[in-house]
Amino acid sequence: MPLLGLLPRRAWAALLSQLVRPPCASRTGAVRCQSQGTRDLSPQHMVVREKILDLVISCFKRHGAKGMDTPAFELKEILTEKYGEDSGLMYDLKDQGGELLSLRYDLTVPFARYLAMNKVKKMKRYHVGKVWRRESPTIVQGRYREFCQCDFDIAGQFDPMIPDAECLKIMCEILSGLQLGDFLIKVNDRRIVDGMFAACGVPESKFRAICSSIDKLDKMAWKDVRHEMVAKKGLAPEVADRIGDYVQCHGGVSLVEQMFQDPRLSQNKQALEGLGDLKLLFEYLTLFGIAEKISFDLSLARGLDYYTGVIYEAVLLQTPTQAGEEPLNVGSVAAGGRYDGLVGMFDPKGHKVPCVGLSIGVERIFYIVEQRMKTKGEKVRTTETQVFVATPQKNFLQERLKLITELWDAGIKAEMLYKNNPKLLTQLHYCESTGIPLVVIIGEQELKEGVIKIRSVASREEVAIKRENLVAEIQKRLSES
Amino acid sequence: MPLLGLLPRRAWAALLSQLVRPPCASRTGAVRCQSQGTRDLSPQHMVVREKILDLVISCFKRHGAKGMDTPAFELKEILTEKYGEDSGLMYDLKDQGGELLSLRYDLTVPFARYLAMNKVKKMKRYHVGKVWRRESPTIVQGRYREFCQCDFDIAGQFDPMIPDAECLKIMCEILSGLQLGDFLIKVNDRRIVDGMFAACGVPESKFRAICSSIDKLDKMAWKDVRHEMVAKKGLAPEVADRIGDYVQCHGGVSLVEQMFQDPRLSQNKQALEGLGDLKLLFEYLTLFGIAEKISFDLSLARGLDYYTGVIYEAVLLQTPTQAGEEPLNVGSVAAGGRYDGLVGMFDPKGHKVPCVGLSIGVERIFYIVEQRMKTKGEKVRTTETQVFVATPQKNFLQERLKLITELWDAGIKAEMLYKNNPKLLTQLHYCESTGIPLVVIIGEQELKEGVIKIRSVASREEVAIKRENLVAEIQKRLSES
Repeated sequence: MPLLGLLPRRAWAALLSQLVRPPCASRTGAVRCQSQGTRDLSPQHMVVREKILDLVISCFKRHGAKGMDTPAFELKEILTEKYGEDSGLMYDLKDQGGELLSLRYDLTVPFARYLAMNKVKKMKRYHVGKVWRRESPTIVQGRYREFCQCDFDIAGQFDPMIPDAECLKIMCEILSGLQLGDFLIKVNDRRIVDGMFAACGVPESKFRAICSSIDKLDKMAWKDVRHEMVAKKGLAPEVADRIGDYVQCHGGVSLVEQMFQDPRLSQNKQALEGLGDLKLLFEYLTLFGIAEKISFDLSLARGLDYYTGVIYEAVLLQTPTQAGEEPLNVGSVAAGGRYDGLVGMFDPKGHKVPCVGLSIGVERIFYIVEQRMKTKGEKVRTTETQVFVATPQKNFLQERLKLITELWDAGIKAEMLYKNNPKLLTQLHYCESTGIPLVVIIGEQELKEGVIKIRSVASREEVAIKRENLVAEIQKRLSES
Repeated sequence: MPLLGLLPRRAWAALLSQLVRPPCASRTGAVRCQSQGTRDLSPQHMVVREKILDLVISCFKRHGAKGMDTPAFELKEILTEKYGEDSGLMYDLKDQGGELLSLRYDLTVPFARYLAMNKVKKMKRYHVGKVWRRESPTIVQGRYREFCQCDFDIAGQFDPMIPDAECLKIMCEILSGLQLGDFLIKVNDRRIVDGMFAACGVPESKFRAICSSIDKLDKMAWKDVRHEMVAKKGLAPEVADRIGDYVQCHGGVSLVEQMFQDPRLSQNKQALEGLGDLKLLFEYLTLFGIAEKISFDLSLARGLDYYTGVIYEAVLLQTPTQAGEEPLNVGSVAAGGRYDGLVGMFDPKGHKVPCVGLSIGVERIFYIVEQRMKTKGEKVRTTETQVFVATPQKNFLQERLKLITELWDAGIKAEMLYKNNPKLLTQLHYCESTGIPLVVIIGEQELKEGVIKIRSVASREEVAIKRENLVAEIQKRLSES
């Protein structure tokens, strides 16, 4: 089995920083009047997004999920102590009297709050929405401070690993559907991570802090992560080195079997539970036909505090340019895991609702798809207009307005120029530049004869049809194209 | 022409306060862990919203609009002094270092900022997004602090009133399409409002403040508005009374003609310009076939500072219960107007881009549709699942997983229970309660014979079909239903 060594990670980090544009780039050189680290989404962006989100949401619906939404801000106390080291990145609202509020940081904590507040014990839902994080614009790689998340979660007490396996199936369906190229889903379990820490001699009080460090392995080299653990977090060097041995291990179900025999891990009850679940998970993944996409990876830690069981992260693999090269990791595009304790934190009696879920990294996917379209020179239409209403003569505004009303009222997407007397060439140019396929033309002659000319923008062919047949004729042409 | 007197307004205010639920109502009686004045959107809400937004967006696209999005927050200075008296309702972000930010208050100011920043001189765009206002939960009627807006705007220098008329056409198409009952669109012009103020003797320094008061006429009785103008804003009582005469006038194009002859208004250049444009507007509205839906209404003022020309507001009319009763106004569901100066405020050289647009009050529409469904006892499905995978026997999890994979991979929306050994009755109950139309059943016998049973949940009929024909058979049944 091919080992993803430490060098490709560094190579990937370099690649990623090229791939993703800096968050504050001004594309226009115009007035500086926008908040740092945010950006507007132009019509071009929106078209790409709409297509990708449609695919993601239709997959969520295929798996029986309901839609849901929560407010952009939550009581600050709801969000506090849920995100580990990243909690400092939360946007707080100004105290203008009343409650202390913060912008939501992800969609998972609001979902858990919703379940507890409404005493919901079972729910399969998806949620597409914006979240906000005060990432420093200078250190982040292509992360905006406002971004979209697409989450799918299954809440409820069920038999082990069935919902967890479905989450991985969904990630595979979405990544295959988007045709982003080859991908791999790394899987681990928080209980294995903690068991590994215990087995290596990490004091329990440092578990979450060391977990945060390990989580950086996809952005930092091992030696830097090791330095952080030893110098900043006070871990003994030999303990760090023991962890270093584990985090290089990854493979299929055979690695799970191997870890069952590991002299240190096999002594740890938690780790054994995690390994048992992973074994069952791989069984279901095989039935789903996706086992070959999954890699048990001991370097996967996931930084968030709330995970309690299986965790996973999907990465795209760049096809090697030369034979024999290892596949290159170009970044995480989906992730998730099990969080069985989070809902209980919001319930006054601590009643737990086990949950497992996933989040699609749509922002990175948007960017990859946009870049690919740019490379291929693909243009997107930003409107859906089907018919343009034109005239070759002056003083035909009234006739154009009557004509376009007929089209709109028949549900046809139609435009005209907002001018009393536009030139015919200007009107035809507009159709060509915006990709409108059909033009209907009315002038003196047409009016006299009770006809309308229909022109195909692509072929420039024109035919005259009876005015009363206009809508039917256009609908026929549109259904044929 | 029927005059909407002052009493129906008060009656309407009372009705509205019943119609719309208070923003802090806890529907569950559960833990208080949500920010005041906000609410979660349940799957039921989301289904209704999705249908309404689809209709609204498809109308915007029918008129050739492009999609766009801007960040949730803007630099505070961008939003300052754009909203008149309501500016105090803005949510500010906490100063955590860096820029001072505020949550967006509407979608119009961010659009104007976008145009100026990107030097866009011409654009027809729609924008669906959340906005935030710190309304006091005790005084507002059914307003949440977070709500959705659906805006359509046309930016650019065009011949007069053509884009303005299209905005009104769009409002009519959407309100008709949503089948909310009869409606009326009140139209006025800021230049007529200002001209009226000047003609009545309002000092120019008080124009915007008095405009804000007039804007409250749809929520307050004239005598209270008059009191506010005189006691709080220092207007001479006789000036207020002169205004009182005008704001009772409303009617069709004939009222425009009448106002041209008005001894006071006809002396005011601004007012004459506004009246001239309204006359032209009515001409186009007639060609669009919507003139009978439009009422020139001198009480319409619109509170926002940025309007410069035509303004409009759509209200639903409740069908009178008794013959001869006047139609009853049940609240504004769409509004907009022309704002020719806003973009120039963000341009360093003050270059203007004339704009006209509209905003659909979707929150009120969501609520009306939800209430109507409740009254009719209509239930909505919150999932779209087409097929449920069931088994009557124990130990059939593996077969179910294989089966559901086939369905998912064929694009069929499918669910199963996350249990190793669920009871058949439980499985069938699940289908009935969630509205899943088809069940596929696999058990020992089916496995032996190489068949699958398909059951129609409604008719309870079951047929056995060959396993290899499963997907085709299901697709056939789904396309027929």
